[in-house]
Amino acid sequence: MRIALGQFNAIVGDLAGNAEKMRNIYADALRSDVDLLVFPELAVCGYPPEDLLHKKHFLQENRSTVDKLAADCPDKTIIVGFAESHQGDTYNSAAVLQAGRINKIYRKGQLIDYGVFDERRYFQPGTGPVVINVADLNIAVTICADIWDIEWLANLLGSPTQVQVIVNISASPFHLGKIEKRQEIVSRCAKKFDCAVAYCNLVGGQDELVFDGSSCLADSTGKLVAAGRAFDEDLIIADVTPASDGTVQVKPVQPPAPQPTDLLDEVYQALVLGTRDYAWKNGFRKVLLGLSGGIDTSVTAVIAVAALGEENVVGITMPSKFNSPETISDAEKMAKNLGIEFLTIPIEPILKQFDQALKEAPGWDSGGIAYENLQARIRGGILMSLSNQFGSLVLTTGNKSETAVGYTTLYGDTAGGFAVIKDVPKTMVYKLAEHVNKTAGRQIIPDDVINRPPSAELRPGQKDSDSLPDYDLLDKILKGYVEEDKSVQQLVESGLPKDVVLRVIRMVDRNEYKRRQSPPGVKITLKAFGKDRRLPITNRYSPCSDTV
Amino acid sequence: MRIALGQFNAIVGDLAGNAEKMRNIYADALRSDVDLLVFPELAVCGYPPEDLLHKKHFLQENRSTVDKLAADCPDKTIIVGFAESHQGDTYNSAAVLQAGRINKIYRKGQLIDYGVFDERRYFQPGTGPVVINVADLNIAVTICADIWDIEWLANLLGSPTQVQVIVNISASPFHLGKIEKRQEIVSRCAKKFDCAVAYCNLVGGQDELVFDGSSCLADSTGKLVAAGRAFDEDLIIADVTPASDGTVQVKPVQPPAPQPTDLLDEVYQALVLGTRDYAWKNGFRKVLLGLSGGIDTSVTAVIAVAALGEENVVGITMPSKFNSPETISDAEKMAKNLGIEFLTIPIEPILKQFDQALKEAPGWDSGGIAYENLQARIRGGILMSLSNQFGSLVLTTGNKSETAVGYTTLYGDTAGGFAVIKDVPKTMVYKLAEHVNKTAGRQIIPDDVINRPPSAELRPGQKDSDSLPDYDLLDKILKGYVEEDKSVQQLVESGLPKDVVLRVIRMVDRNEYKRRQSPPGVKITLKAFGKDRRLPITNRYSPCSDTV
Repeated sequence: MRIALGQFNAIVGDLAGNAEKMRNIYADALRSDVDLLVFPELAVCGYPPEDLLHKKHFLQENRSTVDKLAADCPDKTIIVGFAESHQGDTYNSAAVLQAGRINKIYRKGQLIDYGVFDERRYFQPGTGPVVINVADLNIAVTICADIWDIEWLANLLGSPTQVQVIVNISASPFHLGKIEKRQEIVSRCAKKFDCAVAYCNLVGGQDELVFDGSSCLADSTGKLVAAGRAFDEDLIIADVTPASDGTVQVKPVQPPAPQPTDLLDEVYQALVLGTRDYAWKNGFRKVLLGLSGGIDTSVTAVIAVAALGEENVVGITMPSKFNSPETISDAEKMAKNLGIEFLTIPIEPILKQFDQALKEAPGWDSGGIAYENLQARIRGGILMSLSNQFGSLVLTTGNKSETAVGYTTLYGDTAGGFAVIKDVPKTMVYKLAEHVNKTAGRQIIPDDVINRPPSAELRPGQKDSDSLPDYDLLDKILKGYVEEDKSVQQLVESGLPKDVVLRVIRMVDRNEYKRRQSPPGVKITLKAFGKDRRLPITNRYSPCSDTV
Repeated sequence: MRIALGQFNAIVGDLAGNAEKMRNIYADALRSDVDLLVFPELAVCGYPPEDLLHKKHFLQENRSTVDKLAADCPDKTIIVGFAESHQGDTYNSAAVLQAGRINKIYRKGQLIDYGVFDERRYFQPGTGPVVINVADLNIAVTICADIWDIEWLANLLGSPTQVQVIVNISASPFHLGKIEKRQEIVSRCAKKFDCAVAYCNLVGGQDELVFDGSSCLADSTGKLVAAGRAFDEDLIIADVTPASDGTVQVKPVQPPAPQPTDLLDEVYQALVLGTRDYAWKNGFRKVLLGLSGGIDTSVTAVIAVAALGEENVVGITMPSKFNSPETISDAEKMAKNLGIEFLTIPIEPILKQFDQALKEAPGWDSGGIAYENLQARIRGGILMSLSNQFGSLVLTTGNKSETAVGYTTLYGDTAGGFAVIKDVPKTMVYKLAEHVNKTAGRQIIPDDVINRPPSAELRPGQKDSDSLPDYDLLDKILKGYVEEDKSVQQLVESGLPKDVVLRVIRMVDRNEYKRRQSPPGVKITLKAFGKDRRLPITNRYSPCSDTV
């Protein structure tokens, strides 16, 4: 049996467009003599459709789109994910299209409600298996998490199972280490059921999520024999053959796809794809961002150029009297290295007028933190004015470390439509800069930018280290507290200094309100700020209370 | 049996503080010879604790707090809600405290995952009933939604049930009509099971939610015989007595609590409580807001004064050349009527410098929409600077109608910590203004403010009606589309003009990104923007597609 995995970039809500893409892929598959063509989870409507699922007409259109796809593609078997309304309930379903119509429907059994997922807000779980026959092989249909709980699946399929292939359609977003984890799950599933597993994942950026694709096939020994591209569309074709010894063999018909070189490369590609897709799926061709000559704005600019092309990125430097000649010149150097348009708009005269006006308020201090924040807000105002005038998307440049502790100005440096590196810890931003230079074989990001001690340059001689712990230490604490929900006691027991731990945790908790008003950005860690981590703003839970 | 419902304002995360409050209420109840004291759902940790529930130490502390409460209050039976960790699972539980310890635990069976609720993200459902005996009465313990699905409850309790009282502890947030709906549910439950029902709800504001209290008791005929205060703490005490005819009678021991005069009064009180609690629970004593002389800022100012006192509210008018002398004078009049501090900070000189600086960008238009937005952003910058300088919370003043269609400037008029009337449609803002004047018996909000055609005053002669449909029509469309998820076809069939419907829906969909970065505000309708309505920003679902 020849199987093809149609790993494509579906757009949420674009049912007609997604169907059109699938028809084109079907045409390709026909030319390759494929027996079975598989599309990802909710491929018809994109993932996650969120509260679009509460619209009756949206569900009706899901169904009519699948019916039409079946009619248009009658010659092969297709498995495709869609949102199904059935007797008043909604299901996350996989339709099996054969001979011009929906022949069977499998309903996802393992609905997930952790991290970024809210499936039981919308779906009822399915309860029965669906096994189809294609080219004399028995094929069980499953959806995403269904193969993660292997005991549940064994129970669903019955044992011993009579299937030669388990097909799994997924919409599984990227985070660090996820690709490898998924391959383990696929391999374990193949071994457990002594059958081939064909795993077809979605690809593309959707708000804060990036689906990395990385679809794959394992033979019945659990060996991964084919892997699709990561962070790009792909059509993975393989022949599945039961052998006389009872094993099921899988043989790819194409040469292996190129894969990311390492974890850092995965992160880089995720950021590029997430940025590209957010921009174009929301109708933006051009982006603009502030270039300060610092590491964060530099790395963000590199990603923007990789995502959208140098001709579509504008860098703006907005110096005040606090910016050193070196950083201003580095900003310009970055723009030159990338070949992007570069504008200089000094903020000093605006700052002066603001300061003058604010003296109307008795007690205004022309030099305090409010005055520092004001500079960032003027820059935000300039970027947003240019965005409004020219229709460009503003990219913000804050990293995860400063987002976590609130070392940001609301409506200032957080002002913009997409926060490219908001889930990248500062220490990883440095690694990305080195990765960029290494991959390019030249200093795209100048050494000076990498080596200069970080500063917001909002007052004379300011350094990040005046307000924050060393970033190595800060990022360790943040990983434990934010990603792993560790208590103060656990963090201290792991060797981190208690006074710094307490200080950092207080900063993180106190700044939830800022994050709530921040733009979305690409999730790349186990737990990103956003849908992944939902904490109240009004929250008196004390970091110290667990250390009593 | 004498029962007391301890309707109190719990703070999320403040376990020690909440327990202290409950100990004080227990002391009051002792003095009133109460047999059974009931506290709301998750009273120990506040509702909703969201991802605090993912912290192991938070769950441990929930348990130790309940244990201590039991030890401190040994003389009466107490039912209290807490987050329970049990054999690796987490439950939304009610502890029955008797004789100094936890005697029984009921686990919520009907977990809810719609609207603002995400319970299955955290909790496993309980499966068994808990019936306790107090003063010779059998009392079944239930939690919130458990009494909404009456067939499920009948199944849980068995039939015929041997209970005389069903206690329901709740954390049920307010929206228009909810109080009445809940009373229906309580009454229906009493009738169905021929027993008294004692319903104890949480009170207080928590981010975008307001819990209205409104605890109540029904006798076994379904008659409501006691209702606690709305939007305030209360201790409702009543005697429950089985009569010889098999009915269960309930007799309040206090005179009836004052109740809101009508639905509009409920909304007003919800806004006041939500604003007050957001401010003080987050450590703010003072608030500031822009006063434009328009209806939205005027109504918001009235609510702020009611919430925090005139001495804690500062109004700032920030005129440009586009503001008429009338609106400037009305802003001042409002401040005088309310007795609040008033500042005037003209934005013209700042605007001029911004405009000058932006001319560095070829193509900048000193008169277009970007220039209009810039004025709002300068005002946002001024308010935030004052907030940073003086530690006051900025209240934003946008209503639901303009929030829905994006007739706002991101980082401009949306800049602030709390959006008081963000869920109040413009037509209801007018009604609130009339309600305020009527209740006060004088023109707190001048007639001119109410009667002047609304304008953002960002260009000469601008009117809201230049850009938006008439607010009566707009609000009808928004109610159908936003709150009721109606399709274009349904809206048109209900008599709304198709061209306007399509235009409005496009505006709503296109502006999701602005709402995502807006501050929280009080939910008062069936569906508010925020956790209640979760739509993707990247969303190609077309409003027209359902009209094919």
